[in-house]
Amino acid sequence: MISLIGIGSKREHITLKAVDRIKEADAIIAYRPYLEHIQDIIEGKEIYSRGMGDEMARVELAVELEKEGKKVAIISSGDPGIYGMANVYFQIIDKYSNLEFEVIPGVTAATYSASALGAPLHDLAIISLSNLLTPLEEIERKIKHAAIGDLVIAFYNPKSKTRTEPFEVACKTLLEYKNPETPVGIVTTVDGTETVSRICKLKELHDQPIDMNTTIIIGNSMTYVRKGKMITPRGYKVTTQLPELTEQFYEKFFNGDIQIGKNSDCEYFPCHNDQENCTFCYCPFYPCADGSTGGKWITDKNVWNCKNCNWIHKDEVVDEILDYIKENVKSMDDFDTKKKDLLKLRRATIYKTKDLDFNRNYFLDE
Amino acid sequence: MISLIGIGSKREHITLKAVDRIKEADAIIAYRPYLEHIQDIIEGKEIYSRGMGDEMARVELAVELEKEGKKVAIISSGDPGIYGMANVYFQIIDKYSNLEFEVIPGVTAATYSASALGAPLHDLAIISLSNLLTPLEEIERKIKHAAIGDLVIAFYNPKSKTRTEPFEVACKTLLEYKNPETPVGIVTTVDGTETVSRICKLKELHDQPIDMNTTIIIGNSMTYVRKGKMITPRGYKVTTQLPELTEQFYEKFFNGDIQIGKNSDCEYFPCHNDQENCTFCYCPFYPCADGSTGGKWITDKNVWNCKNCNWIHKDEVVDEILDYIKENVKSMDDFDTKKKDLLKLRRATIYKTKDLDFNRNYFLDE
Repeated sequence: MISLIGIGSKREHITLKAVDRIKEADAIIAYRPYLEHIQDIIEGKEIYSRGMGDEMARVELAVELEKEGKKVAIISSGDPGIYGMANVYFQIIDKYSNLEFEVIPGVTAATYSASALGAPLHDLAIISLSNLLTPLEEIERKIKHAAIGDLVIAFYNPKSKTRTEPFEVACKTLLEYKNPETPVGIVTTVDGTETVSRICKLKELHDQPIDMNTTIIIGNSMTYVRKGKMITPRGYKVTTQLPELTEQFYEKFFNGDIQIGKNSDCEYFPCHNDQENCTFCYCPFYPCADGSTGGKWITDKNVWNCKNCNWIHKDEVVDEILDYIKENVKSMDDFDTKKKDLLKLRRATIYKTKDLDFNRNYFLDE
Repeated sequence: MISLIGIGSKREHITLKAVDRIKEADAIIAYRPYLEHIQDIIEGKEIYSRGMGDEMARVELAVELEKEGKKVAIISSGDPGIYGMANVYFQIIDKYSNLEFEVIPGVTAATYSASALGAPLHDLAIISLSNLLTPLEEIERKIKHAAIGDLVIAFYNPKSKTRTEPFEVACKTLLEYKNPETPVGIVTTVDGTETVSRICKLKELHDQPIDMNTTIIIGNSMTYVRKGKMITPRGYKVTTQLPELTEQFYEKFFNGDIQIGKNSDCEYFPCHNDQENCTFCYCPFYPCADGSTGGKWITDKNVWNCKNCNWIHKDEVVDEILDYIKENVKSMDDFDTKKKDLLKLRRATIYKTKDLDFNRNYFLDE
């Protein structure tokens, strides 16, 4: 049996199955630095420690050892299926009959890096910036469409000392299709153990320290930064209960006692900004806890501060939500029963205002 | 301390750090079925086992327990950052000061499912088909651009008993932009332990048995199936040594003794198909071991059979490669020193012929 085993980027990521397979193996084939993570469980085994670049030799060696009846473990960092050796392995193994082989999945850099940054992921693209074997035009096309589709993007192998061109192209392409203020997370593993992470804006990415042990995570148009964490909201509502003042407001609303549009007679007008539509003076989504709107919690008060959110006060948003409510929401209870449709409508209209507000601030602590 | 812990989709995926954190915890909060995987390491702890859907309640409970000075472990399947609870968790936790929290990454379904299918991944998009909180138009846009960018695509949460529309839209959108013969892998976890996988063609995807425990992996335009495994080649060359007959051919080639274009006088003409360009009678990339060309190994003979590959015999490919060789390859040695540029050129021209050959067979065993 040949087992191609992913061990993540640190000792602590190794899975129980990976440990079992390594312990059971007679022979271990690994790029040298990976051995450090498993030193204590490979004593007494045949060790074949090789440098980078001779992938073919490693697979052929594994086959040879397997033919001798040995259990062979080939060690890969991260997950073997994502820019690991799994692909080449299957291309070659197919030469032979009666070979037993398997892939043991591992923790890949996108998830590990995300965990160091906060919660930046939602629908995402994982793209390698290595153009050693992939034409640069192919990489560029992938980045372009990931950006247009507004996927979160994780870049692997972003840059080496000699290979800098794809990174230049990536920065340029992203700035062409994305907001330059978009939060970007940069996670580097140092000496295979320590994790260093930083967050910057897309327009600043080009000048950050980045190497081959770095993973870069580019936010989508909803990603924001709060208290040093990079967060991409998925659209949940954080409470099911509307606050009392909001309830009172919507009782009036359903009785037709609310003024539609701008209410410049109000003693607080303009409370957020001077061109607002006051129809939803009390937001039906309060507290959304969604920093992509510009709002943030007032720490330890359980109060959501929407001062910087103007989304629900834009004419085009009010029109869309009002149309939906008139058609579908007849009472307070309907805010609950129609909750998911309302949340989707909310998300769709936020998307539209994102396109309008190209200079929104996604860094809430600034 | 609150630890949000990903345990993958099976017991065997749990990482060493996850085990440590679970063992250290005073209180465990988990969706009920996940507890089975960790039963042996949670004895004697406070267990809060809750159903799906009350994510908010779980986070608030965790905060409450943490404030009492307890170590809390919230258990998530897969990775907490990919459609897990990490995003909501950060949205709420931000309410409080002095809370310690961390995310422990896990093995996500894309990598785990890929390992069951073979090696289908390269640059990829991960997209959830759940439209509970995400507007269907947003999902559709993401699928469209992932398809145009030719990313491998992993679909999470593809379909439930009541939620089938996004899956319909996904199938339709993919068929609009991708070859209907594209290999698709379908991996379902049954009872949280057993893994069932199957491979079909994109045009057959719509009628496959699929549920919420299924992950779907859509190949890119180079993905092929051989011996029941789904493989996406990354562009490596599997040998560095050219075979002897090939060497002899290229000696003649460099002496100008090779006929450019169709050689219908050859006794073997047409050896593959009747419109071929014979310039590269011996392929400079032999044996490429790349099934996306239609070639395959003759098992146990170490012979690569290119009978079904016509890529290197297409006029437009010959022109491009010939131009490069005339400019850059002056001797046999240059095949090695220029290897990476040649492989990139190869990949770029294969891409172009993929666009031409919309009905290529990617299922090599058929």
